[in-house]
Amino acid sequence: MKLYDGGRAPNPRRVRVFLAEKGISVPLEQVDIARREHQSAAFTALNPLQRIPSLVLDDGTVISESIAICRYFEALQPEPALFGRDPVEAGLVEMWQRRLEFELLMGVAAVFRHTHPAMAELEVPQVPEWAEANRPRVQRFLALLDQHLEGRTFILGDYFSVADITGLIAIDFMRLPKIAVPEELANVRAWHARLAARPSAAA
Amino acid sequence: MKLYDGGRAPNPRRVRVFLAEKGISVPLEQVDIARREHQSAAFTALNPLQRIPSLVLDDGTVISESIAICRYFEALQPEPALFGRDPVEAGLVEMWQRRLEFELLMGVAAVFRHTHPAMAELEVPQVPEWAEANRPRVQRFLALLDQHLEGRTFILGDYFSVADITGLIAIDFMRLPKIAVPEELANVRAWHARLAARPSAAA
Repeated sequence: MKLYDGGRAPNPRRVRVFLAEKGISVPLEQVDIARREHQSAAFTALNPLQRIPSLVLDDGTVISESIAICRYFEALQPEPALFGRDPVEAGLVEMWQRRLEFELLMGVAAVFRHTHPAMAELEVPQVPEWAEANRPRVQRFLALLDQHLEGRTFILGDYFSVADITGLIAIDFMRLPKIAVPEELANVRAWHARLAARPSAAA
Repeated sequence: MKLYDGGRAPNPRRVRVFLAEKGISVPLEQVDIARREHQSAAFTALNPLQRIPSLVLDDGTVISESIAICRYFEALQPEPALFGRDPVEAGLVEMWQRRLEFELLMGVAAVFRHTHPAMAELEVPQVPEWAEANRPRVQRFLALLDQHLEGRTFILGDYFSVADITGLIAIDFMRLPKIAVPEELANVRAWHARLAARPSAAA
């Protein structure tokens, strides 16, 4: 088994944090996006969408998409459960994982990918109007998230889940397009500090 | 339990098709998006993101996001399994579900929402450049999907999964922004015909 990894990029880190929380160790192979190694013929043969992370099993099966890789390991080693411990938690974790991914992580990514000069060759065409449309969407979601986190340690209360991991990744990713969590959103800031203090955050 | 549903919209239908495949019946309540009922104070209290479908359990717990609702029912009633029957299938179903959702369904939705006059009040601001950036992305993914489907009945071969349901929804949704599956993509067309012929497609 080998995990094609990509250093600082948010989705590869999402899987590394997940594996750290699970206590699972997987051999990593670095794919350098800046050197466009993800667009090489060899890597494209593994994943025609040219995305990292991608997991290759011993029989050659390729699982890409960060959350799909996490699902594979969750099924392989259920404890500690990070996708919910009963049907209601399974639904709520998926709901919040998706909200944090679509509203926050993808919103931040849209701002970064469609404005940053370093992305001009990777995001073709860059659509600056789309970046601008995402800025208020990110801020609206952060405000909603702050309300939700009132009185809660993690997204699902006392239960730490993969939704928190996606949240950590998304908030940390905001540094690149220089989006800040507003000072007044104290619940989001405290939640992020709790996540960043976990040993897994160093992964 | 009550499922807030929305008639012809793609995500509410995705859950109805899933429930039909499971043989599960849930009381539905219609939310009329054209009349902006999803933006009412009562519905916003249930789901601050103002999205349908949303499932309300008897204790008041709200699960929104179509795939999260499907996950809840999968955990509640595992058979027939639509999210995979072992760890590798769990990973591959999630991978393809996400590919079909992000590359195809979201791509088609971007074209529709950012070009159609009927969406001008719901998608603010409309960014026509973003719609145009998504058209080639949709076509590239359809070509890749056609290669994958060569020799396969469903996305995972002989095994029907929720990834096929997302595919059915996405292809049917292409009618609204008038995007066609190219004639030469015979595998995609035959796969869609197989999915459309299942009784669940009428849900």
